[in-house]
Amino acid sequence: MNYIVDAEQRDDICAVSTPPGVGGIAVIRVSGLKAIEIVDTIWHGHRLQNVGSHTVHLGSIIDPLDNSVLDQCVATVFRAPASFTGDNVVELSIHGSRWLQQEVIRVLIGQGCRLAEPGEFTRRAFLSGKMDLAEAEGVADVIASTSRAAHRVAVNQMRGGLSSQLTSLHDQLLELAALLELELDFSEEDVEFASRDHLTQLATRTLDLTRSLAATFAAGKSLREGVPVALVGETNAGKSTLLNTLACHDRAIVSDIHGTTRDTIEENIELEGIPFRLIDTAGLRHTDDPIEALGIERSYKALASARIILWLIDGSTLVSTPSHSDFHHSIDHLFSLIHTHQSPDSTLLICVNKSDLLTPAQHSQITHLLTTLPKTPPYSSASLSTPITSGDILFISARNNLRIEDLRNRLVASSGLSEALSTDSVILTNIRHYQSLQATSRSLEAVIQGLSAGLSGDFIAQDLREALHHLSTLTGSLSTPDILSTIFSRFCIGK
Amino acid sequence: MNYIVDAEQRDDICAVSTPPGVGGIAVIRVSGLKAIEIVDTIWHGHRLQNVGSHTVHLGSIIDPLDNSVLDQCVATVFRAPASFTGDNVVELSIHGSRWLQQEVIRVLIGQGCRLAEPGEFTRRAFLSGKMDLAEAEGVADVIASTSRAAHRVAVNQMRGGLSSQLTSLHDQLLELAALLELELDFSEEDVEFASRDHLTQLATRTLDLTRSLAATFAAGKSLREGVPVALVGETNAGKSTLLNTLACHDRAIVSDIHGTTRDTIEENIELEGIPFRLIDTAGLRHTDDPIEALGIERSYKALASARIILWLIDGSTLVSTPSHSDFHHSIDHLFSLIHTHQSPDSTLLICVNKSDLLTPAQHSQITHLLTTLPKTPPYSSASLSTPITSGDILFISARNNLRIEDLRNRLVASSGLSEALSTDSVILTNIRHYQSLQATSRSLEAVIQGLSAGLSGDFIAQDLREALHHLSTLTGSLSTPDILSTIFSRFCIGK
Repeated sequence: MNYIVDAEQRDDICAVSTPPGVGGIAVIRVSGLKAIEIVDTIWHGHRLQNVGSHTVHLGSIIDPLDNSVLDQCVATVFRAPASFTGDNVVELSIHGSRWLQQEVIRVLIGQGCRLAEPGEFTRRAFLSGKMDLAEAEGVADVIASTSRAAHRVAVNQMRGGLSSQLTSLHDQLLELAALLELELDFSEEDVEFASRDHLTQLATRTLDLTRSLAATFAAGKSLREGVPVALVGETNAGKSTLLNTLACHDRAIVSDIHGTTRDTIEENIELEGIPFRLIDTAGLRHTDDPIEALGIERSYKALASARIILWLIDGSTLVSTPSHSDFHHSIDHLFSLIHTHQSPDSTLLICVNKSDLLTPAQHSQITHLLTTLPKTPPYSSASLSTPITSGDILFISARNNLRIEDLRNRLVASSGLSEALSTDSVILTNIRHYQSLQATSRSLEAVIQGLSAGLSGDFIAQDLREALHHLSTLTGSLSTPDILSTIFSRFCIGK
Repeated sequence: MNYIVDAEQRDDICAVSTPPGVGGIAVIRVSGLKAIEIVDTIWHGHRLQNVGSHTVHLGSIIDPLDNSVLDQCVATVFRAPASFTGDNVVELSIHGSRWLQQEVIRVLIGQGCRLAEPGEFTRRAFLSGKMDLAEAEGVADVIASTSRAAHRVAVNQMRGGLSSQLTSLHDQLLELAALLELELDFSEEDVEFASRDHLTQLATRTLDLTRSLAATFAAGKSLREGVPVALVGETNAGKSTLLNTLACHDRAIVSDIHGTTRDTIEENIELEGIPFRLIDTAGLRHTDDPIEALGIERSYKALASARIILWLIDGSTLVSTPSHSDFHHSIDHLFSLIHTHQSPDSTLLICVNKSDLLTPAQHSQITHLLTTLPKTPPYSSASLSTPITSGDILFISARNNLRIEDLRNRLVASSGLSEALSTDSVILTNIRHYQSLQATSRSLEAVIQGLSAGLSGDFIAQDLREALHHLSTLTGSLSTPDILSTIFSRFCIGK
């Protein structure tokens, strides 16, 4: 592929590459045509210009102002092109004082370096052809990952997982273009090299691949933000106990994010490496109070955007209310609200908590009640796309850790992210990639329409070129400095 | 020297050595007998057990749980004893996500590593004889340094500056002990190998060296905490303008530390690499109000503990009060307060601000007024150890940057820390060192007293052994695991 190479690529840049702050050591990276010579001017020890690539040397950094020793430290030399950036690179592993980090940068700048921009080292790696743009963006995603699943997908992207799929898409588009080209060249001679049907078949196959790749973006969003789970149930149903049991079980980090109103509280937990965002919809009920209605509006939104609805029922209420009428009414009411607002592709999981306080007969009673919902108009069983079955109901005890493992497996299975945990899963997490693939899809749709409408090859070829163009911006084989600046400005300094 | 070697020294420890948080890269250090073998079990790339010391290798870290790739990264191998700790060491330079850092540590622990304690890598360096205790403590000071001067002193200590002085002290004590031993052995034969006078001379020389080294601790305290400067002057004298002018001039960091009362405000500035702690004593005045007196008590304390007293006078007050009587009275009053409370070895600097508004005649008038202080009883010129001379007075303008450079030089010169900026300055910054040297001094004083009192050699030898003991705890040639634990627990994890 042909990459656009910046004229200024080989000038010498430096930055602290380790996290900001004080630590045992900090690493300062210097990259450029003269990186090694520049470090040599402030280095007391082996002359680094004379050492081999990938070797490490003990020495001192000297302040050229007064020849004082700034630090005793270790320098690692990487010679072009066998370095991360493709340039000559020296990494100085210095003592991690904040003051010293600043001073070494100051001294390097004094010797002719320039402070690197955010992501500039990775940008150079891209410009040197060390990685394509999707792989470079994977580097930033690896650094930003906060869950096992997100990390897996990012590492795979960094290692070329997405890129290889894009290459295969690109190859298919090129094959299509070549066939169409042939047809264009020889069309006046009435020689048809590829039938329009064959071309349509090929384009459809490519479109399917493009669409299925683009479709992974929904999973990617869950991966970044956590799988949205709406928690439905009365306050005393044992939600916080359940959350703690779920989270502790996996030694996951439970954190409270208090929303803008008391009615929306989010908690983030990680189950088997998958991030979940649990949104409490405690305020869910009918109301005539306009102020309260605002809070409830949020609960409806949470319900509508949830991938999983976790409905927690306090089983012991059945025992304490012998007439069952309040219990039945409450169940029926909540179900109608859930059913009205839930997204069609969401999964409903019903957990009957404190079930260890119930007799087997009461278990059956509750199962019967739930599987024959709804009781009241205007909802009829017939209108339900997926009526509740006994398999959707889990009798648990959050306090006594009863069937919590089952619940966890259900949550993981319903997340749609289990495959993200396999090493080679390709999931789009970047909106730029998603948009490029959508644009590619649109161009391919135009190609297919053109073929079926019998348009001339010229028109179809134009749409195909557009499809190729959109795909090329994704890998960066076609990219402008503007696009690159936008992409790499999201990186941290030093990477 | 004989170091106490922990039995567990060579087990395998690991820790993140870079600052906590997210960054481009993070470095995980593994040290121990099997460090390289352990990393090999999770390393995909060149077999690290086969590579040479001080070489760098690209590869992948594999999670042994499911053989997934955790990261693509770089490993640096240092073979024992040519490493920081003296053990086999592998440094993994991974992508700097917080999640990944935790995971790599988790995987290493799963393969048989133990999480390193704070300072444990440096502790091993000490136990391996790579550095003595004073040098090891210098490492921690280098990391904690926040000013050029403090950094210089710490780097010098880390590089053995203090240790070489301690070795020379140690040698002198040994010489003394050897001579005394000879005298003891042959005392019954009336052969005097070294006269008592000669021994006294030698002991006195050693005591002087010990004392002069201990005396640098005052400077070391200033270096750590900032040179205390008491700012005296009315609120409108232009103190904040002066502070800003002083600080900006040096691009130093100015920060406000609000004290427990409104009357004590501290600002930290760095001038030519030396840290200053400026304490505002705005409330300084006589009072009968007991509450106000508490605040003023603090101002007195600031005055008493200040190394420099910076008295800022608003020169324009002279112009606006033609009778001068208020001006004179205020000057006289403040001077009597300063003179009563200042420490004998403090320096008084008088700055007449807004001096660009004054005529030369007014300059002379103010100089005359100040150099003939005090006017009122009970203070008499005769009681002043150092009367004010015209050389102590600077006519400045904080706003117009007039003679600020002069003031800055005066502050630096009066700090007693100029020598700290020379590379090879030895200044005690550690209270443990100070206490050991003081104990050494006390034992040497007992030696000298014993010699002059004609005590028997046995008694004197006992005191000498104590002096040697105290000195040995300082370098760590004699140290208990308890002392080491206390010292190294102050380090950060990963160093």
